[in-house]
Amino acid sequence: MHQPKAEIIAVGTELLLGQIANTNAQWISQQLALYGINIYHHTVVGDNLNRVVGAFSDAHSRSDIIIVTGGLGPTEDDLTREAFQQLSKLDMVEHKPSMDKIELFFREHKVVMTPNNRRQARVFTDSIVLDNKVGMAPGMIVSYDNRKWVFLPGVPREMMSLVTNDVLPYLLQLVGNKAIIKSEVLRFIGIGESILEHEIKDIIHGQSNPTIAPLATDSGVIIRLTARADSSEDAIRLIEESKQEILSKIGNFFYGTEQQTLEQQIVDKLRVSNKRLALAESLTGGMATSKLVSVSGASDVLRGGIVCYDPKVKEGVLGVSSKTIAAFGTVSEECAIEMATNVCLVLDADIGISFTGVAGPNESEGKPVGMVYIAVCTRDGHQQVEEFRFQGDRDTIRNRAVLKGLEILFNLLKS
Amino acid sequence: MHQPKAEIIAVGTELLLGQIANTNAQWISQQLALYGINIYHHTVVGDNLNRVVGAFSDAHSRSDIIIVTGGLGPTEDDLTREAFQQLSKLDMVEHKPSMDKIELFFREHKVVMTPNNRRQARVFTDSIVLDNKVGMAPGMIVSYDNRKWVFLPGVPREMMSLVTNDVLPYLLQLVGNKAIIKSEVLRFIGIGESILEHEIKDIIHGQSNPTIAPLATDSGVIIRLTARADSSEDAIRLIEESKQEILSKIGNFFYGTEQQTLEQQIVDKLRVSNKRLALAESLTGGMATSKLVSVSGASDVLRGGIVCYDPKVKEGVLGVSSKTIAAFGTVSEECAIEMATNVCLVLDADIGISFTGVAGPNESEGKPVGMVYIAVCTRDGHQQVEEFRFQGDRDTIRNRAVLKGLEILFNLLKS
Repeated sequence: MHQPKAEIIAVGTELLLGQIANTNAQWISQQLALYGINIYHHTVVGDNLNRVVGAFSDAHSRSDIIIVTGGLGPTEDDLTREAFQQLSKLDMVEHKPSMDKIELFFREHKVVMTPNNRRQARVFTDSIVLDNKVGMAPGMIVSYDNRKWVFLPGVPREMMSLVTNDVLPYLLQLVGNKAIIKSEVLRFIGIGESILEHEIKDIIHGQSNPTIAPLATDSGVIIRLTARADSSEDAIRLIEESKQEILSKIGNFFYGTEQQTLEQQIVDKLRVSNKRLALAESLTGGMATSKLVSVSGASDVLRGGIVCYDPKVKEGVLGVSSKTIAAFGTVSEECAIEMATNVCLVLDADIGISFTGVAGPNESEGKPVGMVYIAVCTRDGHQQVEEFRFQGDRDTIRNRAVLKGLEILFNLLKS
Repeated sequence: MHQPKAEIIAVGTELLLGQIANTNAQWISQQLALYGINIYHHTVVGDNLNRVVGAFSDAHSRSDIIIVTGGLGPTEDDLTREAFQQLSKLDMVEHKPSMDKIELFFREHKVVMTPNNRRQARVFTDSIVLDNKVGMAPGMIVSYDNRKWVFLPGVPREMMSLVTNDVLPYLLQLVGNKAIIKSEVLRFIGIGESILEHEIKDIIHGQSNPTIAPLATDSGVIIRLTARADSSEDAIRLIEESKQEILSKIGNFFYGTEQQTLEQQIVDKLRVSNKRLALAESLTGGMATSKLVSVSGASDVLRGGIVCYDPKVKEGVLGVSSKTIAAFGTVSEECAIEMATNVCLVLDADIGISFTGVAGPNESEGKPVGMVYIAVCTRDGHQQVEEFRFQGDRDTIRNRAVLKGLEILFNLLKS
């Protein structure tokens, strides 16, 4: 299939009510655009059989590849299969591996399976059944009347997993995509998007292959490099050249590529240097520790953490001196340093990091909302503490504090 | 126009490339839903004349009100007017007030106006021209062949301003809407979407006012009730009646309304009963504590937590007996109970909750990925522990464990 026309149909009344935005269509479009497959329409239609059949029929008349999200679940509102059957007259059968999985789920959760759950295991005969590794309803690819119909669950996590593992490889083979596209994401922390863009302005404007696309995210700024070439080697070389040019300007702020996270890098660097980490968290309340625990293998390097939300816990469990708290308050350089030093001792770690501050909405101990101290202390005597003033609401302040703490840890470990 | 069919068409290739999500359609849908105007389709089409004409023609054949966003700007890619002209054969004229405004803008900004900017001032004869107070291109409402066509710029700020000030008042008058709309969200935990629907199937099918719309979310299932009536009192009464009927069936799983979170409810109930909470987290790594800290005012009832990720921390800081760990492992009922009991003592709390389990990706101590124990112990001797088998990747398992733990806490506190 050369230069096929593709389109995306989302089925779900919740989209027409505006309860959610159609981010599924956006994400799928991004993936396909990267591989040169053109999308010509997005459609949203509600959970109404006639209208879904209508949308499917329109799509069938104009597109070669039709990707449908949603409407595969267990309830009577989930009508995607019925609508496609009405259009195609294809038969459905119960897919035993999917049904086994559904039954297992209910057994393990000790919940009685209601009969409507069987609906999810029905697939069209001769379809390619896509195993849903993070949910219940399987995906399907159906060849019908020279079109390829791809059916995916509407839950974003499930849809993304199926697109990445099954649908994209299938479509790339189908369209015989021979231009090689390679893409790499560079991740930066400690530098804002506008300054980053300013620093590499000449590089961005001086070339078009690879494309250089900066984007601000919740965990720092990323740059996506996308190169096209006739061979994999050429594409990789083009990306590598641009990457080196960019890093020569802003390499100080670089921390990783692709899906690498700051917490992953920290865990890796701790493992290499054979150091154990412990955390003492007040306003962040366990969020920093939880981020590190999200890294598979964190157990090798992470002792644990103490959430000393109550001042009495700071004293009683962490052993922050009552004199320090009386003289400087819990939101102070002095308290932060004692927290970091003591958590090292209490949890038998090599490096301790502490967070104390005012998340809001009200000021505390006469300190303003957003004031945060982060300290890092090591068993061999290194001590550092910094004061920050973060803007935003309670959650934003806590998130920014955690990100800044991870940045400080990373910079310490890479030096 | 009574009970008209409405739809929304977004024009712009950037949407089909996934550079942005169609949040305009979401927002407009929310506004219209609130006033009982039903949207039956969302469509996105790129900046291509034939395809835009095709999308307009489809819409014209099935809807009474068609709202178009985007494609009104100054560049040659902006084809919305041309496409509608091709469909309707209506004439366009230059709208003098709009042209004056555009010229003024360029004079004030001391920029030479390129001729293509005149394109933005063209309007259909006999259309209602909507003054764009935050941008250049005016909006338009065109009556054609018994349909109402509403043309709006794609920039969200401009679109929202026009919808709020001009389009909504126009449409409400058009549909003769005098009805008052009230809506309430009910939140449930511990019951899946399919079982919930099964339980209240008769209620859902037995009535249409209020509408009853269940939706699965990351923090349980919600039901949105939306009632229409001639007076505010009547709408509230209709919602209250449905709510009571629903709660009589599944009230056990109800935890709050509107934006109330489970963690908020837990903090409130702890405050009312004057109890202090402490957490011991292994696989969840501080995530449960952090959720509770996200509630403003948590400091009144939350002592803190210990993230005992390393077995040595379970022993050393929490005082879990080495015999227990040797005999049953850290992923066991016995360890969970000791963690919950001891964290109460160590942090001087009234209630302790613990999480221990295998987040994956690999099994641990011979226990499978997803096996999790959650225990709750109180100072006055209450003890409970449950085993779970959660599905999914590392993050999903951790998230589900935290949600389940909050559910257990809530159920304990409400009883």
